Amino acid sequence: MRRNILSVPIRKVDPEGRSSQQDLLAVEDPLEIRLEERNIAITMRTPGNDEELVAGFLFTEGILQSAGQISKIVPKGGNRMTVSLAEGTDIDFDRLQRHFYLSSSCGVCGKASIEAVTLSCPFLPRGGLLIDAEVIHRLPHELRTTQAVFDRTGGLHAAALFDATGRLLNLREDVGRHNAVDKLIGAAFLKNNLPLHDGILMVSGRASFELVQKALMAGIPVLAAVGAPSSLAVELALRFGMTLLGFVRDERFNIYSGEWRLRAAGV
Amino acid sequence: MRRNILSVPIRKVDPEGRSSQQDLLAVEDPLEIRLEERNIAITMRTPGNDEELVAGFLFTEGILQSAGQISKIVPKGGNRMTVSLAEGTDIDFDRLQRHFYLSSSCGVCGKASIEAVTLSCPFLPRGGLLIDAEVIHRLPHELRTTQAVFDRTGGLHAAALFDATGRLLNLREDVGRHNAVDKLIGAAFLKNNLPLHDGILMVSGRASFELVQKALMAGIPVLAAVGAPSSLAVELALRFGMTLLGFVRDERFNIYSGEWRLRAAGV
Repeated sequence: MRRNILSVPIRKVDPEGRSSQQDLLAVEDPLEIRLEERNIAITMRTPGNDEELVAGFLFTEGILQSAGQISKIVPKGGNRMTVSLAEGTDIDFDRLQRHFYLSSSCGVCGKASIEAVTLSCPFLPRGGLLIDAEVIHRLPHELRTTQAVFDRTGGLHAAALFDATGRLLNLREDVGRHNAVDKLIGAAFLKNNLPLHDGILMVSGRASFELVQKALMAGIPVLAAVGAPSSLAVELALRFGMTLLGFVRDERFNIYSGEWRLRAAGV
Repeated sequence: MRRNILSVPIRKVDPEGRSSQQDLLAVEDPLEIRLEERNIAITMRTPGNDEELVAGFLFTEGILQSAGQISKIVPKGGNRMTVSLAEGTDIDFDRLQRHFYLSSSCGVCGKASIEAVTLSCPFLPRGGLLIDAEVIHRLPHELRTTQAVFDRTGGLHAAALFDATGRLLNLREDVGRHNAVDKLIGAAFLKNNLPLHDGILMVSGRASFELVQKALMAGIPVLAAVGAPSSLAVELALRFGMTLLGFVRDERFNIYSGEWRLRAAGV
């Protein structure tokens, strides 16, 4: 397994002066994703769970629809993963090239608009799930205490999947929040566990359009973020009936959409 | 000017119960960047300073080298900017297409390796700049008090340029940290003020490879981040002699590289 923490010598400056110490860094390294013989993407990620990352990326970006379309995922040299397709799996490489040609490093993979999401979303969140506010209050603590790396480097984002009672189902970490979400969804994808119609996705930091889009692809009905959502994240959540919660911390949170999934507060 | 804050109705959950309120969101909206007749990139950004964003993006990604190569930048419909090139400006569109084809939404624009940065960096940081630790201690406060939007939405990143005495030269905000940096560098690029050999770049949040790369392109010798740097950010800073500071807050910081630009501490 590739290391995901690196210890480096640093100089620390504090009111007592300067001193030499060792510091732990979250590893960031490029991963090249190849589909058959083609370069599909290069992502800056934290090594670990690379197979899930690749599978999750191909699924949340609308390129693959089921684990059965993959025959194998082969690592090479630590920074390249090659996905071989199962027989009969058809990918429109021309469309894919246009898709990525339009994309930049900037938080959008060819999904220039909410309309594009509408077209490509295989599972939409369903109703039916009811959650207690008390469950939401417990999530940030669960996320922090379970995080394997964050507390040691301060540099990793986490994405965790909970059930409606607040039980932790899975957690992944990465320097990129979108990668942590792709790893989490990729793990479910590879086990044929999608859609995640009964799950709550909790992320450290903010909720962007991209995170809502990825959660929607997996059919996740509730996205809770420690930080603020963006305008487009809220718009997308409203449009697809997702429950979006922000500033989830210290026994408080804001409901931006889908309040109907939260059980009525006791009087 | 396009709005960069949106007020939306939310439900607030706190120990007192639930209440209806208005909340301010940082606006996130796609911007399509066109070079002549070609789509170059779509980035999710906060509207405002779009011209600087486009210019900064084209410069920090190694596509343009000087403001003189641009004849005009024309907005269209709020979410598209078309860059027309000055006569005689030559762009290798085939190379560009390969470059972006290799890129994904994931924090890397065709710069798959440190070697790629080596090849494309027009200005490298110079020595000569000496900074007092006291100046660094003051930066986070300056950043926060100057930020026009952050304190109202909690959702925007900031990038600010300071001189060696800690005087604020410029500040830009965006939902994407890389966009805030591109706006800041783009502003200098459009005024022919590059390289920024005497500047300190301070960013909210973490320092990734991408931010170090963009700062290097502009010749900025010091990058200070409120949060943690990644392993590759440190590696790149060490390689190019940049001073990289992390966890800059509460009268403390860590020096990851280039301590020689910090004036010796008084005994």
